[in-house]
Amino acid sequence: MSLQAGGIEVGAAAGNRVLTGAEILLRTLVASGVDVCFANPGTSEMHFVDALDRVDGLRCILGLFEGTVTGAADGYARMLDRPACTLLHLGPGLANGLSNLHNAMRAQSPVVNIIGDHATYHRHYDAPLTSDIEGTARPFSHWVRTSPNARSLAVDGAAAVAAASSAPGRIASLILPADAAWSTVPAETAEGLTPACPSLPSRPGQEAVEAARRIVASGEPTAIVLASRATREIPLRLAGQIAAVSGVRLFAQTHTPRISRGAGRVEVTRIPYPIDQAIGMLKDFSNIILVGARPPTAFFAYPGQPSLLYQPGTRIHELARADQDLVYALGALAEALGATAVQPPVAPAGPPSGPASGPLTPASIGAVLGETLPEQAIVIDESITSGRTFLGDTRASAPHDWILPTGGSIGFALPNAIGAAIACPDRQVVVLESDGSGLYSPQSLWTIARENLNVVVLVFANHRYQILRNEMAGVGASGAGPKASSLLDLTDPVVDWVRLATSLGVEASRAQTIEGLRTALAAAYAKTGPTVVELPL
Amino acid sequence: MSLQAGGIEVGAAAGNRVLTGAEILLRTLVASGVDVCFANPGTSEMHFVDALDRVDGLRCILGLFEGTVTGAADGYARMLDRPACTLLHLGPGLANGLSNLHNAMRAQSPVVNIIGDHATYHRHYDAPLTSDIEGTARPFSHWVRTSPNARSLAVDGAAAVAAASSAPGRIASLILPADAAWSTVPAETAEGLTPACPSLPSRPGQEAVEAARRIVASGEPTAIVLASRATREIPLRLAGQIAAVSGVRLFAQTHTPRISRGAGRVEVTRIPYPIDQAIGMLKDFSNIILVGARPPTAFFAYPGQPSLLYQPGTRIHELARADQDLVYALGALAEALGATAVQPPVAPAGPPSGPASGPLTPASIGAVLGETLPEQAIVIDESITSGRTFLGDTRASAPHDWILPTGGSIGFALPNAIGAAIACPDRQVVVLESDGSGLYSPQSLWTIARENLNVVVLVFANHRYQILRNEMAGVGASGAGPKASSLLDLTDPVVDWVRLATSLGVEASRAQTIEGLRTALAAAYAKTGPTVVELPL
Repeated sequence: MSLQAGGIEVGAAAGNRVLTGAEILLRTLVASGVDVCFANPGTSEMHFVDALDRVDGLRCILGLFEGTVTGAADGYARMLDRPACTLLHLGPGLANGLSNLHNAMRAQSPVVNIIGDHATYHRHYDAPLTSDIEGTARPFSHWVRTSPNARSLAVDGAAAVAAASSAPGRIASLILPADAAWSTVPAETAEGLTPACPSLPSRPGQEAVEAARRIVASGEPTAIVLASRATREIPLRLAGQIAAVSGVRLFAQTHTPRISRGAGRVEVTRIPYPIDQAIGMLKDFSNIILVGARPPTAFFAYPGQPSLLYQPGTRIHELARADQDLVYALGALAEALGATAVQPPVAPAGPPSGPASGPLTPASIGAVLGETLPEQAIVIDESITSGRTFLGDTRASAPHDWILPTGGSIGFALPNAIGAAIACPDRQVVVLESDGSGLYSPQSLWTIARENLNVVVLVFANHRYQILRNEMAGVGASGAGPKASSLLDLTDPVVDWVRLATSLGVEASRAQTIEGLRTALAAAYAKTGPTVVELPL
Repeated sequence: MSLQAGGIEVGAAAGNRVLTGAEILLRTLVASGVDVCFANPGTSEMHFVDALDRVDGLRCILGLFEGTVTGAADGYARMLDRPACTLLHLGPGLANGLSNLHNAMRAQSPVVNIIGDHATYHRHYDAPLTSDIEGTARPFSHWVRTSPNARSLAVDGAAAVAAASSAPGRIASLILPADAAWSTVPAETAEGLTPACPSLPSRPGQEAVEAARRIVASGEPTAIVLASRATREIPLRLAGQIAAVSGVRLFAQTHTPRISRGAGRVEVTRIPYPIDQAIGMLKDFSNIILVGARPPTAFFAYPGQPSLLYQPGTRIHELARADQDLVYALGALAEALGATAVQPPVAPAGPPSGPASGPLTPASIGAVLGETLPEQAIVIDESITSGRTFLGDTRASAPHDWILPTGGSIGFALPNAIGAAIACPDRQVVVLESDGSGLYSPQSLWTIARENLNVVVLVFANHRYQILRNEMAGVGASGAGPKASSLLDLTDPVVDWVRLATSLGVEASRAQTIEGLRTALAAAYAKTGPTVVELPL
């Protein structure tokens, strides 16, 4: 918890050891364990930017758009379970980052946003960039505070990190007025700082464990639904032991932040997105035990369909909330069932070989993906309709992590890939991207190039919003008219992803066949740095 | 104010004339004068999309990102002074559009946002896309309402258009739950609908006019600062008459939505962005008369610099607020001064010829731009540091409109161009775009291509955030360190704008010289449809 010695040259001429508020904040962030900042700064943040060269310990990554920045912080947090910070420019800069903060919030990712504001005395003149930053942050933050001056930044910076780090992972938004950043205070302000304490996960009570034990032991058809951090390797193993001794079935919530999977790992079935499939999968269970999950709910409402995915009368038991200790909860249940010595069944090693050649289809692509997936790959899945079978195709692949959309706001995958690759530089990141989704934040490719990240992006180019064609029918509308059809069509013009990616500095190619995909993947996995492969479907 | 006959086939079998809520809303929008919808829809909006083919009168333009959609609505409103609507997908879709709504709000542009939400009964299950949409809309809207059911949509739709159309132009956000859109109600619900009445501009009182007359007649150094709709041709002419008889000086607020200018128009000096230049320009005026403008204020605060751009003791007199009748106010003042028969001085016709050849510099580019600007061009200026002399270069160009950033959130120009071109299909739109700014919403180029809009985009490619280099010094920071410098640098990798634009379907070229620029501009102005020209600086 040492504080760096940088920065004290400011005002040091007369022996006054002073620091700017920006330096105080940077030291506090670093001392609190934050070591990466994803940034798209403007004028009000220039003192923070300037201070990066005087306070050691914070790596700063530039994004060309704020959605890149917040989505990167989400990806970083999903891999490391600790916050990066973002640096955003007043209300509109924050606004551009909100939709990926929504996804991060739903992923229970810890994120610290530093949002520059006008100098405190300048705000009431209502200059053009003035807006209600606290009001803008609040719907997408658990914690919002405006730091009034340089002196307050040590306490507020530490409080922001503690808030973000509180279980299960929260969004903290700290607003930094320009004059708080540029004013100087004695260096001692940041010395001897005790980092604030996050709220740690509590343990579920014995009654909750005992109730779960009785349900599991009853022999009634029972599903355990896992989400939040319960879909990682260790909790999945405990859940596998429970299932092995009891016959309960294990499910992952449709939109859970990350699943550790592949050969040797306990398998879990993702509840599918299509409502009829989800209802069919859950209809025979009289009990559902939640571990960091919400009661299974339809993503959207559809006329004549229920909102809840389970049958009326199903008993729902919450073993542990997402903000509780999920490993403890599953361990306590396994122990209560006498399952802790059991070897649970796991996914087999060695996926089947995919086709050597032939046309690109979701099935053939998935098979090749499964066969070739590098060990410890981080797969970021925004493949939407194209990728519905990919989880099955990769169940026996080398061990890997699978990142899913959590908040339903599309355009999360390319930004997330930045954060995941920064967090885990030795692992291969594989982005499964639908073309419609990728066009929400294509600028992210520039940051991927700039940082030379080990990211392979497979773009499934069907040139339409296929999911909306499906949904149109799902909500009971025809969508057959020319105007409606046109709004779901991306063929006029066709986006050229090879040109798009190369324009932003990423090597790219188009694979027209399985042979082409195999060649492109082999080259991409073999090299350091990013690759985009467009797959026309 | 006729209501179309479409849509009544729904449920018409038994002679029940019923409409869906979506159809009711569409009919109401059309009946209220809204004829364009900029859209990026999702599942909750599918009934609205479907209804587009059953209710005539609403043209729908697809954007691949919501900032494109809201910025287009802003551009449309700046040219026509009436609202288009947007179609956005729940809280995150709205969030992606907020920063350009901020710009629209500061431009006093009327905009009606239609934001889909979950079905009312589905909301409390907290499905992944659920968020506080009203709370998200509020900081960037003057009017927010959630319509509870299909029956309410006629009244609420009309109220939203009235709110948006109220002086001087407002942001109205109507939240449309999916079940309100898909439920049916008797067709009569939307018949005989009386559109709601917007608040019309009031007239300033005679005291305000008389006070302004006394100031102008005093002979003291006086500035008139014009903003909002006071920088259009007719009010500028009235202001020119006032100046001609009194010697007062005319200024445009730095960030005003649109200036009508060029040969034969009364000229107005834009208050410059750099604070020292602005203070220098205003320092000798003892009186400032505001016409739809705010007291001149620095865009940002800088250490040791004032927030206000005028000297302490300057008398500030508000002749008319932005929501008042600015033409009336200037006319009344001109009349009180006996100036209504005066021919005011105007900009000369015939700009000087620019260089025939040579290197690209801001000066040479500006001269060629001024010489060749087509009559009635709509110039959208997000050139930031590269374009500081362009207003001077074009003062004698053929008559045209000049659209400026208003809210300071960058990435507004490409979206704005879509709306301006849809609003004025017979006019040439010219976007002056800095490369950093253009990368906030490059997807907008796809919509420009899809609609084959008459838009020429000049990209000033200096490959850096030059304004932030300037601002770093302005706020008293050094920014000389390697980390700070790197965050303002866009050379690694260099973005290839020709590839980027062509990947999104827009013809593009790179001009390396003035000859190249001339050739590219001539071709672009001669053809129908869009062109991007990258200008390395």
